[in-house]
Amino acid sequence: MTAAPSASYNLVVDLGGTRLRAALTDDSPRLLARVEEATDHARGAAGVTDQIARMARSLVDGSGLSWEALGRLVIASPGPLDGKTGVVFSPPNMPGWTTVPLRAWLEERLGLPVKVVNDANAAAVGELHFGAGRGKANLVYLTVSTGIGGGVVVEGKLLEGTSGTAGEIGHMTIDRHGPICRCGNVGCLEMLASGTAIARRYREALLDNGQRLVSQLGSQPEVTAADVARGAAAGDALAASVFADAAEALGTGVVNCIHIFNPDVVALGGGVTRAGPLLFEPVRRAVARYAFPIPRDAVEIVPAVLGEDAGLLGAAAIAVEPGASGDGTTTERDNARSNLKDG
Amino acid sequence: MTAAPSASYNLVVDLGGTRLRAALTDDSPRLLARVEEATDHARGAAGVTDQIARMARSLVDGSGLSWEALGRLVIASPGPLDGKTGVVFSPPNMPGWTTVPLRAWLEERLGLPVKVVNDANAAAVGELHFGAGRGKANLVYLTVSTGIGGGVVVEGKLLEGTSGTAGEIGHMTIDRHGPICRCGNVGCLEMLASGTAIARRYREALLDNGQRLVSQLGSQPEVTAADVARGAAAGDALAASVFADAAEALGTGVVNCIHIFNPDVVALGGGVTRAGPLLFEPVRRAVARYAFPIPRDAVEIVPAVLGEDAGLLGAAAIAVEPGASGDGTTTERDNARSNLKDG
Repeated sequence: MTAAPSASYNLVVDLGGTRLRAALTDDSPRLLARVEEATDHARGAAGVTDQIARMARSLVDGSGLSWEALGRLVIASPGPLDGKTGVVFSPPNMPGWTTVPLRAWLEERLGLPVKVVNDANAAAVGELHFGAGRGKANLVYLTVSTGIGGGVVVEGKLLEGTSGTAGEIGHMTIDRHGPICRCGNVGCLEMLASGTAIARRYREALLDNGQRLVSQLGSQPEVTAADVARGAAAGDALAASVFADAAEALGTGVVNCIHIFNPDVVALGGGVTRAGPLLFEPVRRAVARYAFPIPRDAVEIVPAVLGEDAGLLGAAAIAVEPGASGDGTTTERDNARSNLKDG
Repeated sequence: MTAAPSASYNLVVDLGGTRLRAALTDDSPRLLARVEEATDHARGAAGVTDQIARMARSLVDGSGLSWEALGRLVIASPGPLDGKTGVVFSPPNMPGWTTVPLRAWLEERLGLPVKVVNDANAAAVGELHFGAGRGKANLVYLTVSTGIGGGVVVEGKLLEGTSGTAGEIGHMTIDRHGPICRCGNVGCLEMLASGTAIARRYREALLDNGQRLVSQLGSQPEVTAADVARGAAAGDALAASVFADAAEALGTGVVNCIHIFNPDVVALGGGVTRAGPLLFEPVRRAVARYAFPIPRDAVEIVPAVLGEDAGLLGAAAIAVEPGASGDGTTTERDNARSNLKDG
């Protein structure tokens, strides 16, 4: 086994249900070149893996770099996934995916060590290095969207846990007598405060209150969380009540994170945070009222700032971290190359 | 500033409301010599600090070591406390303590760098190095007693957070519509599953059910959690129902920890765990039913094994960790000595 030249470049990928982004990065880390396509679901997981490999090759070919100059590929993927083995299990937004050995498949196709990271975990690292947590050490990130994803950075390092599944803050029970979550658990934060939950709870409340309240939104067949937020801002009492309760539930989740992690910053991202003060004020009130004084005084509750680039930037930061697995050492690169089939 | 000889010995203290334990340790770390006294509350916090300093001096004097050979003192203390400043705030079991600068006071008295650690955090580190988590990297520790204390080890290192208050798992809300906790928060795990909670809920249930159920424990004015456990084992339906609900609530807390930390091991200690299977079986059932498969299959739920030595052993392990503050560097030792008043 010969010593490879020290690798200064990496590939990063952000895999989403609708968009697929890839970039070539250096060890600053900066994004040197990027490509983006619609995720092509026509041939399922194998087809998407081929698409990623093709985009990765086009980035390297376009750069004039040799493959020897590349250290690793880090891919932010929807979960559930096992970060240690790089196997992804039936993400809700990836049709046809069941048990997909994404790490092994990409290593076969590219001959590079690959690390698979939960997309919300990658976004947390992105926000720490380039966004809402810049200069901080301890960050909790929540993305409040269709579901609620989470990621935690402890002393500058992503909290991964034993199988790389840590940070599932959206599936923390905050109401043990609450509704069953789609995950099978009871009263999860996601079940009470996600965009899907807000829309569902508004529809349920309309049914309960239909005879007594005139709603400005009631005629819409497909109410979204954004509609509920707009209704609340426009004075619809039912919408205001539903949105406020969801925001308070989110506040409970944030207080729990403050007690558990004592972070410098809690960054909230995802579509539902576009509601602005309607979301942030109840969360901050819950923290002011219920959190222990010492960690409360140490934390800021802020909007995430990176938007759709969070995953790609987080993957870029993870690519240059030293780590126990998938860290692009010479040995790993040699092992990955020995599996090379069509790279 | 001259270079001190490399320090190979440390002092460790476990401060409790009733017992005060201290030991001299080496860098293995092993406890070389130990002393134990009843905590003397007669002169409040200053008196207890003097008592700790006296015990520390007697250990060093008895060992024949010079003070130059000592690196630091690590003290496991009841919280709430700020681990970064070493200030302790009114622990419920320390009468007369308000805002006590324990670190500064001990550094003044002993001329050694001092690190103050929450007692449950220290116990978590103890269980990792010497007990239920030996050989593991990621551990969640809960002590279920009068309250519920917590400590988390991530990749071998204590999770401290920005102010050293991380790991307050007992004050995670698991029932957002539940009872107000003595901490002011709502529906905390401690409020639903601690020994105090079990006794309180049994008394409340007796009042609610007094006319309908014959209880074997109802005549006792001061029912404890141990009484409820005994009653449950002996066939008292009300006691069984109260204990089972508390154990299920603890199970919810453990599932949350599994989703958040994806640990190798969850170790449960404290007096209530003496109930054995009556406590562990509902917890394990909750994990089997509600936790995500990947982290569920990676974790063991086990009894803590160190008992009353957990804090002292954890402090010994923390004493030999490299750390950002209170790590016994030459500079820190010189700074501590420059504050020396009566050492």
